[in-house]
Amino acid sequence: MSLIKVPVLLFVLCFIASLFASHVEARIRHYKWEVKYEYKSPDCYKKLVIAINGRTPGPTILAEQGDTIVVELKNSLLTENVAIHWHGIRQIGTPWSDGTEGVSQCPILAGDTFTYKFVVDRPGTYLYHAHYGMQREAGLYGSIRVSVRKGVKEPFAYDEDRSIILNDWYHRSTYEQVARLSSRPFQWVGEPQSLLIQGRGSFNCSILSTPNLEAGACNMSNPECSPYVITVVPGKTYRLRISSLTSLSALNFEIEGHNMTVVEADGHNVEPFVIKNINIYSGETYSVIVKADQDPSRNYWAASNVVSRPLHPPTGLAIFNYYPNHPKKSPPTTPPTGPLWNDTGYRLAQSNAIKARQGYILPPPVTSDRVITLLNTQNEINGYRRWAVNNVSFTLPHTPYLVALKENLGHSFDQNHLQRIMMQQIMTSTSETHPWHLHGHDFWVLGYGIGKFDPINDPKKYNLVNPIMKNTVAVHPFGWTALRFVADNPGVWAFHCHIEAHFYMGMGVVFAEGVEKVGKLPSSIMGCGATKGH
Amino acid sequence: MSLIKVPVLLFVLCFIASLFASHVEARIRHYKWEVKYEYKSPDCYKKLVIAINGRTPGPTILAEQGDTIVVELKNSLLTENVAIHWHGIRQIGTPWSDGTEGVSQCPILAGDTFTYKFVVDRPGTYLYHAHYGMQREAGLYGSIRVSVRKGVKEPFAYDEDRSIILNDWYHRSTYEQVARLSSRPFQWVGEPQSLLIQGRGSFNCSILSTPNLEAGACNMSNPECSPYVITVVPGKTYRLRISSLTSLSALNFEIEGHNMTVVEADGHNVEPFVIKNINIYSGETYSVIVKADQDPSRNYWAASNVVSRPLHPPTGLAIFNYYPNHPKKSPPTTPPTGPLWNDTGYRLAQSNAIKARQGYILPPPVTSDRVITLLNTQNEINGYRRWAVNNVSFTLPHTPYLVALKENLGHSFDQNHLQRIMMQQIMTSTSETHPWHLHGHDFWVLGYGIGKFDPINDPKKYNLVNPIMKNTVAVHPFGWTALRFVADNPGVWAFHCHIEAHFYMGMGVVFAEGVEKVGKLPSSIMGCGATKGH
Repeated sequence: MSLIKVPVLLFVLCFIASLFASHVEARIRHYKWEVKYEYKSPDCYKKLVIAINGRTPGPTILAEQGDTIVVELKNSLLTENVAIHWHGIRQIGTPWSDGTEGVSQCPILAGDTFTYKFVVDRPGTYLYHAHYGMQREAGLYGSIRVSVRKGVKEPFAYDEDRSIILNDWYHRSTYEQVARLSSRPFQWVGEPQSLLIQGRGSFNCSILSTPNLEAGACNMSNPECSPYVITVVPGKTYRLRISSLTSLSALNFEIEGHNMTVVEADGHNVEPFVIKNINIYSGETYSVIVKADQDPSRNYWAASNVVSRPLHPPTGLAIFNYYPNHPKKSPPTTPPTGPLWNDTGYRLAQSNAIKARQGYILPPPVTSDRVITLLNTQNEINGYRRWAVNNVSFTLPHTPYLVALKENLGHSFDQNHLQRIMMQQIMTSTSETHPWHLHGHDFWVLGYGIGKFDPINDPKKYNLVNPIMKNTVAVHPFGWTALRFVADNPGVWAFHCHIEAHFYMGMGVVFAEGVEKVGKLPSSIMGCGATKGH
Repeated sequence: MSLIKVPVLLFVLCFIASLFASHVEARIRHYKWEVKYEYKSPDCYKKLVIAINGRTPGPTILAEQGDTIVVELKNSLLTENVAIHWHGIRQIGTPWSDGTEGVSQCPILAGDTFTYKFVVDRPGTYLYHAHYGMQREAGLYGSIRVSVRKGVKEPFAYDEDRSIILNDWYHRSTYEQVARLSSRPFQWVGEPQSLLIQGRGSFNCSILSTPNLEAGACNMSNPECSPYVITVVPGKTYRLRISSLTSLSALNFEIEGHNMTVVEADGHNVEPFVIKNINIYSGETYSVIVKADQDPSRNYWAASNVVSRPLHPPTGLAIFNYYPNHPKKSPPTTPPTGPLWNDTGYRLAQSNAIKARQGYILPPPVTSDRVITLLNTQNEINGYRRWAVNNVSFTLPHTPYLVALKENLGHSFDQNHLQRIMMQQIMTSTSETHPWHLHGHDFWVLGYGIGKFDPINDPKKYNLVNPIMKNTVAVHPFGWTALRFVADNPGVWAFHCHIEAHFYMGMGVVFAEGVEKVGKLPSSIMGCGATKGH
């Protein structure tokens, strides 16, 4: 495993002060969730999912900037533990609420109730999902939508606000996938069976033969898998919050015949630009503005297609429904099939187009104190196939890093892999796109490139003027991505490829950041490994 | 849930003293086990099983009376916890090692290593298996064979000693079964797909159609599912230890053309009797003596067949191989199909035939201090189908009873269901056979009957002369069974139907027995529910 120690360089106290000031008007939003295995048919094929209060995706968290979110999570998985990560929420002052098993907490024991409590300190589009084993793939995920404070004006206008999560979907259980990925010789889990839009997809049941299936196990007329419908009123303008939580797939999303204006990425305002379709990688969120300005006598396809991999499931479809047409009326057209899967240049150009919006630029430090180069590799370790960073394959320790480091339980993980401080990093990909996600922080995206990174000349081309800040970024095939972040949030933070199997197979590191400045850890995050009995 | 408090009536200290005396010569047998999900094909159909050191059934524990068994159990299930029960081992002085999640311990957390340590104080045939959720069905089970002390002579002779476990086998995961059993409306999990003998069965793959299956997912020539072979030398005598750990099925086992002499039941010597086939219920163990006295030029079928249920999987088959015939040579005959499934009288007669052996009779107390009548019922509770005892459906508490009672964590379970002391019980079954298993004790089997129990006349017919002692006993369809036991083992002990789904659905009670006399609890059994942080 890789652990990188980062002293807190710029711990901006005045920011914390302003955060507390904002609490005066902020509300506490209380949720009671029960997590349980249930049979669902998201893509018409019945399988066990991990549902929250009977649903996958789970309930959407709606809040206003500065609100405190309290989620009382009851684990009813019977024999299995759980943990939920609040993706994009920086957890300033509450690193123990990050929900990352092995990093910020022990798993929530089967039968236990655990309370997450944190402040959503910025407006924007965020996510939540399981962060334990490969449970995210079992359907344990949902949206967090944080609106600006009352009276604050956003730099773009819309009539309605909608959220959709894109996903891919496997029919095998996560247990089966884990058993394959960790087998020797390696067994690939294959491409997903379908693509979901807001938890709904359409698997072609006819390719399965019936004698093997019980009645109803795959049923294309099951209402659970009827396409998701986005109903719009002609002439109105919509903010569509699009995010991806795919296990594997890089996606391209398009609303047939409609332009989209990108205005937000991972909670940051984007200098608007117009596109026909948007490339989106697992862990990313975008807001786009869409006007219902096309022929209102028909419906349109909203479509997601896999890019960056040659084989993939059929197009994921939703219906962009012009009121008062029937919401289930199929559009008269062939669904969009997306750009060429291997047109890396096209996707790189879109990555480069995403800049911070004028008036909302948070300028990055012009230099970095430390540079760390992280190289993604696939390695064979003791006959097991693993992903690695600088040839070190990450495994989650049994004692969460946060507790181990804060409480000096030194022997609970391997100290040999301590690495140096960083404020910038370069990652080289092999043949596919790896979306890297940082916990506890946003980073500036200084630049992308294809080919070997040139440490002399490439940094000269960094965008230090208006780089976007994000929490998840793509490393394009055979390419590199340069990031910078300020280590100003005491805690222990995972930084990893957001492809579920890749993180499980070791593609990640952990930043230990000014752990001595972390407040008193709640005992609720303990109870495993060396913290048993704490 | 039902909790029955039992003060210790006869805590025989001299017995404990003799136990320690025996330690002088006893050995410590140390096992290191890793529990992990792996793909296996026990009946030719590939599915995930929970294996111990890569095997299901797990390694056999071989020990001598008085030995101490130490099992260091590493839980590598990734996100799932585990617990293992040592079935038939009374755990005198070590109630915390009973391995019953929710009763004697918290589950062993994913990633944790837990050490079970206990004395096997009596010779005989015992079992181990998961006792958490429905993990036993996933293949986590094995044999314990305890031989008599060196120099001690058994009252029967044999040349070789062999163990086989009978089982039934489902293709669906335990997660799927649990989801069905706990769904509203109730979804029955159906009959098992096959019967296993020592972990091997033969599912007819041809009834599955291939388009739905990946290559090799069902393969009748997979060596993992070739029939188990019991090789014998003509003229020699064999002790065959037969046990059952079926999820659902009551079985009848037969070795074609060979008589069996029953000599042991659940660790107690039986007054020998000869049978053509043996009825065996989940949780029971028997030793039979078989002589290889038939035509040695051929092999014979060893067959298990379902009784007591009308629908069932095909006969489970092993090969009783006469050396030097080829062990895979199929017998020339049609396999035995067992007795009529609904011939309750036949099975009742066999139950009645099992008596303690002359010279080894431990006489029961002639009267009981308390009588408790337990009536098995199936109830509909809030729309969920549940099994119940006296209309109370058992649910395992999140804080183990042993810890809750010993440490006075009173609020961790419902005190309203405290019941009265017992030394005898009568259970009436509905339409199928329920095998009831008692932890921490053997009981005398005083009598069986069909129809409503008559509390005046039936006790007059009790066998108080030479009743067998057992830890698992059948309650026959529409029948009753009378037991008696001495509350002489401080601890908290489950008493439940050994059908995996029935216990999960509430068919059990717990005896709290002189808990104040239990020694200091090890902290390793804590960490869940109200014991979090202990």
